[in-house]
Amino acid sequence: MTTSPMAQLVPSYAQGQWWTPAGDPAGTQVLDANTGELLARVNSDGLDLAGMVNYGRTVGQRELGKLSLHERALVLKELAQYLNARREELYALSFQTGATKIDSMVDIDGGIGVLFTYSSKGRRELPNSNVILDGPMEVLSKDGSFAGEHIYTRIPGVAAQINAFNFPVWGMLEKFAPAFIAGVPTIAKPATPTGYVAEAAVRLMVESGLLPEGSLQLISGSARTLLDELDYRDVLAFTGSASTANSLKAHVNVVEGGVRFTCETDSLNAAILGPDAVPGTPEFDAFVKSMVTEMTVKAGQKCTAIRRAIVPQGMVPDVVAAVGARLDARIVVGDPRAEGVTMGALASLEQLRDVRGAVEEMIAAGGELAYGTLDAPVVRSTSGEDSVVDAGAFMSPLLLTWDDVRNQAVHGLEAFGPVSSVIGYADLDEAIELAAMGSGSLVATVCTNDGETARVLTTGIAAHHGRVHMLNRETARSSTGHGSPVPHLVHGGPGRAGGGEELGGIRAVKHHMQRTAIQGSPNLLTAVTGVWHTGADRVIAGAAEFGAVEGAIHPFRKSLAELNIGDAFASPLRRVSLEEITAFAHETGDTFYAHVDNAAAEANPFFPGIVAHGYLLVSWAAGLFVQPAPGPVLANYGLENLRFITPVPAGDSIRVTLTAKKITPRVTDEYGEVAWDAVINNQDGEIVATYDVLTLVEKEDVTYKNWK
Amino acid sequence: MTTSPMAQLVPSYAQGQWWTPAGDPAGTQVLDANTGELLARVNSDGLDLAGMVNYGRTVGQRELGKLSLHERALVLKELAQYLNARREELYALSFQTGATKIDSMVDIDGGIGVLFTYSSKGRRELPNSNVILDGPMEVLSKDGSFAGEHIYTRIPGVAAQINAFNFPVWGMLEKFAPAFIAGVPTIAKPATPTGYVAEAAVRLMVESGLLPEGSLQLISGSARTLLDELDYRDVLAFTGSASTANSLKAHVNVVEGGVRFTCETDSLNAAILGPDAVPGTPEFDAFVKSMVTEMTVKAGQKCTAIRRAIVPQGMVPDVVAAVGARLDARIVVGDPRAEGVTMGALASLEQLRDVRGAVEEMIAAGGELAYGTLDAPVVRSTSGEDSVVDAGAFMSPLLLTWDDVRNQAVHGLEAFGPVSSVIGYADLDEAIELAAMGSGSLVATVCTNDGETARVLTTGIAAHHGRVHMLNRETARSSTGHGSPVPHLVHGGPGRAGGGEELGGIRAVKHHMQRTAIQGSPNLLTAVTGVWHTGADRVIAGAAEFGAVEGAIHPFRKSLAELNIGDAFASPLRRVSLEEITAFAHETGDTFYAHVDNAAAEANPFFPGIVAHGYLLVSWAAGLFVQPAPGPVLANYGLENLRFITPVPAGDSIRVTLTAKKITPRVTDEYGEVAWDAVINNQDGEIVATYDVLTLVEKEDVTYKNWK
Repeated sequence: MTTSPMAQLVPSYAQGQWWTPAGDPAGTQVLDANTGELLARVNSDGLDLAGMVNYGRTVGQRELGKLSLHERALVLKELAQYLNARREELYALSFQTGATKIDSMVDIDGGIGVLFTYSSKGRRELPNSNVILDGPMEVLSKDGSFAGEHIYTRIPGVAAQINAFNFPVWGMLEKFAPAFIAGVPTIAKPATPTGYVAEAAVRLMVESGLLPEGSLQLISGSARTLLDELDYRDVLAFTGSASTANSLKAHVNVVEGGVRFTCETDSLNAAILGPDAVPGTPEFDAFVKSMVTEMTVKAGQKCTAIRRAIVPQGMVPDVVAAVGARLDARIVVGDPRAEGVTMGALASLEQLRDVRGAVEEMIAAGGELAYGTLDAPVVRSTSGEDSVVDAGAFMSPLLLTWDDVRNQAVHGLEAFGPVSSVIGYADLDEAIELAAMGSGSLVATVCTNDGETARVLTTGIAAHHGRVHMLNRETARSSTGHGSPVPHLVHGGPGRAGGGEELGGIRAVKHHMQRTAIQGSPNLLTAVTGVWHTGADRVIAGAAEFGAVEGAIHPFRKSLAELNIGDAFASPLRRVSLEEITAFAHETGDTFYAHVDNAAAEANPFFPGIVAHGYLLVSWAAGLFVQPAPGPVLANYGLENLRFITPVPAGDSIRVTLTAKKITPRVTDEYGEVAWDAVINNQDGEIVATYDVLTLVEKEDVTYKNWK
Repeated sequence: MTTSPMAQLVPSYAQGQWWTPAGDPAGTQVLDANTGELLARVNSDGLDLAGMVNYGRTVGQRELGKLSLHERALVLKELAQYLNARREELYALSFQTGATKIDSMVDIDGGIGVLFTYSSKGRRELPNSNVILDGPMEVLSKDGSFAGEHIYTRIPGVAAQINAFNFPVWGMLEKFAPAFIAGVPTIAKPATPTGYVAEAAVRLMVESGLLPEGSLQLISGSARTLLDELDYRDVLAFTGSASTANSLKAHVNVVEGGVRFTCETDSLNAAILGPDAVPGTPEFDAFVKSMVTEMTVKAGQKCTAIRRAIVPQGMVPDVVAAVGARLDARIVVGDPRAEGVTMGALASLEQLRDVRGAVEEMIAAGGELAYGTLDAPVVRSTSGEDSVVDAGAFMSPLLLTWDDVRNQAVHGLEAFGPVSSVIGYADLDEAIELAAMGSGSLVATVCTNDGETARVLTTGIAAHHGRVHMLNRETARSSTGHGSPVPHLVHGGPGRAGGGEELGGIRAVKHHMQRTAIQGSPNLLTAVTGVWHTGADRVIAGAAEFGAVEGAIHPFRKSLAELNIGDAFASPLRRVSLEEITAFAHETGDTFYAHVDNAAAEANPFFPGIVAHGYLLVSWAAGLFVQPAPGPVLANYGLENLRFITPVPAGDSIRVTLTAKKITPRVTDEYGEVAWDAVINNQDGEIVATYDVLTLVEKEDVTYKNWK
C-alpha cells in the first residue's frame, strides 16, 4: 500500500464557508479501493455543529423561504444542468471508489436525474406557493360556515442527512432534492470512504452560485454530536447499517425530543421465480439476467441487491447453473479503469473483510457454496493482465444454496457484496412465507407471466416490502431493474429495512413538511391557503339578480396581474326546451333513452322523465360564461371533478357561476393555470352540476392587447 | 370512603373468550370519582398476551380478510346503530368517572359518531376491494411497457391500542374504527381508572354478533409485556403521558424491531387572540367562551384543552376579568348527577394530587393565581346542597398570569385539569414564537376576523401543530370547538405532543397499511390492483378497424355480474366540419373566438386556426359510445380528469375508445359505480382528449330486462 503523508483533508462546508480543522491534524485515511493508495483524509473535529444547525434554521430557512415551491424546483433543474456539464470531474473521482463506468453513471447521472425529475414534478404537481393542500375541504357545520381541511407547510428546522458509502452522489442528491423543494436546509454527511466524491459534487453546486445561502452544508468526517443539536423541528434521514440506525433511533432526542427520524438499513431482498417461469421461458432468462446484474453492479454493494432467490424446488439446480454460466460469460473482475472489466472492487478493505466474514458465517450455519470462491480472485489490472491478486478490495461473485430453506442465516445475514443465495419453495404460500422471513425488505422481484400468480405473490408480500418489482416478458427489456430506486417511486421498506420512506415523487417533499388540520370559516381558509373556498367572499360580475356588483369586470378579461381569487361571474338564466334536447341528441348522436324516450326515462330510478344531456348543460354553461372576444384567457385545457347532481327536464332553466379558485403562474412561461370553480344551478337555486374549469391565462394581457 | 370487598374483577376479552384471573386474586382498585366508593378491580396477571397477539395475527387477520373495505365499513355502521340504541347503559357507568352528561355525550355519542363517520367515508372514499391505489401510474419506459405506482395493503399484524382515561369510549373507538376498516385486528387496552366503561362498550359490541372473530380483544388491567410480543408487522398506538410514551418508544421492539409506533402525549395548547379582537368584538367574546369551555369540559382533563392564552399585552387584564366573570356565572362544580352541575370531578384522587402538584410547581416558578383557589372547592352534592367538601376528586377552575412570558413553566408544565394561563405578546412575531415554545402541540386556536392576521399566525405556527382552529364571528356559533378532534381531521401533533397522527378520515385507515411501490407491465399492474391500466389487454367491441373482436358485446350492455375490467368499445371515426363547429357555437352560445374567428384563433399560441369546442368533442364522443336503448347502465353521473391535448380543426375526424377501468359495487345498493377510461383520438391516432366517464351500473340487468 502506497501512502502519501501529503494527502489533503477533505473540507466541510459550514455556514457558507469551506472549512478544515486548524493546524492540519491527522484524520481518518481514505484509500483508493482498487490500489489501496492513500487518497485523502477526513476530520471534522472542531467543526461547529451547533452553529451549522442554527445557521440552517435561521439563514437557510429565511433564504429558502423567499422562494416558492416552483421557484425552488426550478433551481434544481439549473443545478442539474450545471452538474451535467461537469460529470467528467466526478467520474474521474468515482473510479477510485472501485466503481466501473456503469456504476459511476448509476451514481452520478442517476443523482443528476433525481434533480431533473424533482424539478419537473415539483412544478407540475405542486402549487406555486408555500402551502400545499392535502385532500378536500370537509364541511363541519350544517350551514357551511365552519369547515376543515389539511395543509402541509415546511418543518421549521434542518434536514440532517447521513448517507451510505455506495452511492456518494445519488445518495446525497436523492435526499437533498425533496428537502430543497420543501424549503428545508440540508446538512449532508457522506460516508467517509467515498465522501470525497460527494464533496466534489457539493463544490460544484456551491460554485454554480445557484444555491440560496444556507440551503446546503456538508460535514466531511464524523457527524459526531450532530444529533445532540436536533429537535422536533428537524428531520434526520439515515442510510447505512442497522446497528448505527438503532443507536441513532435510541438517542434521547429521537425518543423524547421528537426528532423526525427516517432510515433505510439492511435488507435481504428476495426475487421469486413463478412456477410458470420454467427454463426456456423469457421469464426464466430475465430472472437469471437480473440475478447476475444485482450480484455484480457496484460489486453487489447495493441495499437493493437480490440476496435470496426463491424459486420452485425443482428449479434450484437450473437457476444455479444458469446464473453461474452467465457469471462465467459476462463478469470480469478488476480495476474499473481496465478494458473489459464489468465488476470493480468493494469500496474498502474493511468492506471486503466484513463481506467475507458474513459469508463464512453463512457457510458455518449451513449454506453451501454453489458458485465462486472465497480465495483471492482473478483480477484484471489496468495493463490488461489477468492474475490472482491479493491487493485491493476485490472478490469473486458467490452463490449459496441451502438444505434448510428456513435457516435463519439465509434470511438474516446480509453479506454486502456480490453474494446471493438460492432456495426452493413448494407452493406460492411457502414462497410468500419465505419472502416475509426477511422481516421487512426494501424490494422484491416477482417474476411470472401469469396475472393470478403475480396478484397472489405481490399482494401476499406487499406489506413486508417497500417496493415489488414484477418482471415478465413484456418488461424484460424495458424494466428499470430490481435494484434501481426511481425518483417517482417510494424507496424504503418496513422492519429490518428501517421502516423509512424516501423518494416517491412529491411524497418525499411532504416528508419534510408538517401536515396540519386547519379549521375555520371559508373566508379564513381562503386567506390561509390562497385557494378560494366555497362560501368565501367574492366579487361577482354579470347578472345583477345573482349578486353581481355594479361595475365589476368579467374575470376572463383579467390577466394574472389583475386577477384575484374570488373574482367571479354569474350568468343569467337560460331555459331548456324539449326541442333543444332533441336537437342536441340528434346532432351529437347521443340518443340515450333518457333524452328521447319519456316512458323509458321515467322507469329509470334517477330521472323524472326526459332530461337534458349533462354534456348539453356544460356546453351551455360555457356559452353562458364565455367572453367571445380575444383576451388574456388563452384556452380551456380541461375539466376536473364534474358531477351531475340534479337532472334538468325541459322547461327548467340553468345558470352558471364561475369563481377564480386557484392561480398558478408558471415560473418558465408567460402564462399560468387558473382553476375556476363552476356551479350550475337551476331556476330554484338547486345545484345541477359542479366542476372545475381549467384555463391558461396570460401573466400580462399581451397577445391580444391591441386586437381589434 | 366506602369500600366493598365484593367489587368484581373487570374481565378481559381474549381469543374470543371473556377472561378473569383464576382464584379471584386482588387487583388494582377502581373507585367512583365522585364518592370514592370502590367500584371494581382490574387484574391482567396470567392473561396470555402472546396468545392474544397470535390470535389477532392469524384468526383476526383471516376473518377480517374475508371482507372487503366496504364490507368492513358497513359493519362499523351496524355496530354504531347497535351501540346507539344502548347508550343509556354506558351513561350510567360514565357518571361514576366524574363526567357530566355533556362530558359523557362527548365520550359516548362522540365515539359512536366516529364509527358512523368512518363507515360512511370508508364506503365513499375507498375502493370496494382490499388494495388501495395511491396516486397515478408513472410510466417508466419510453414504450409504456414498464410502469410503476403505489398501493396500500393492510399490515400483517395487530393494532395494539393503549388508551387514556379521559375518554374511555371515544378513545377506544377512534383507534378501533380505522384499524377495523383496514382489516387489522385490534387489541384495546383502556386506562385502569375508567376501563370499566370501555369494557361495557366492548361487551355490547361482542354481544351484537357483528364483530368478525378475532377483530377485537380487550386487556382489562396492565398491558404488562404486550410490547415484547410485537414486531414490525404490528402497530402500537398510545395515548397518555409523555413519560410512558418515551419508555415505550425506547423499547427494543420499537427501536430495533420495527414496531410501528404512534403516540399522542402531553400538549400545552395555545389560543392566540388577534390584535383586532378587542373587548366588545364577537371574536373577544368567542375567545372567552372557548377558554371557559376548554377549562371546564371534562374538568379540563383533555389533551386538547387550552393551557396558554396568548393575547395582546394590553388585553391580559381584560381576558382574565372576562374569563373569571364567565366562570363565576356558568360553572357549578359538583357531582355530575346533581342538578345544575356543569363541571364534575377529576377522574381520580391521584389525578387531583397530580394537578394540584403541577399548579404548585407553576406558582413556585413565577405563576400568579388570577382566578380560583387551590383549597377544597364548593361542591354541589346530589341532594342539591353546595358546601366545601374535601372528598371526591373535585377542584376549582384556576387561571394563572405570568410576568415573564417566556417562563419555561408556562410552556412546559401541563396541569391536566381545569387550569389555564394568560400571557401577553407585543406583536404577531412574538405571538408565533410564544406558541412555538410549547415545543409541538396538538392544537392551537387563532382568534381573529382579519384574513391577513389569520394567514400570518396560522402559517407561522402550523408546523408546530397538528391542528389550527381559526375562530371568528362567522364560526363563533358553528365551530365544533378548539378542543374537539373530529374524525375527518388529523388528531395529533409534533414534538411534545408525541409526533403521531390519528383520525383524519381515510388517512388513519392508511396508517394501518403499508404503502408499497409496485412496478411492472400494465397487464400485471392491472392483475394486482383490479384496476385497468392504459396499455393492458382488453376485449374491444365496436369498430373492427380499431381492434374490435368479432362478436364482442358493447360493455354498456353488461351488468356488473357480466362486466370485466378491460371490456372496451371502440367507435368509428366521425368527421368534424366547419359548419358543425359554427352551429355548435351558436346553439350553445360559446362563440369564443377560437371557434368562430380564424385570424384571432391563429394568433393564439395553442391553436392552428378555428378548432372544435372541447365540449363539442366530448358531446360527440358520448354520441359515439352511447347505447341508446335501456340497459344496465343507468346514468352518467360525472367526469374526471378531462384534458384536451390536441386541437381538432375542421376536416379532422375523431373517434373514442372506452374501457371499463374500475368497478365498485355498492354494498347497500343494487348497483355500483363503473369508471370508464375514455380516449378521443383523431384520424392520425393522435390523442385529442383523455378523461374518465363515471356511470352507475346495475349489479344485475333488472330495471330494463324486459323493456320493449
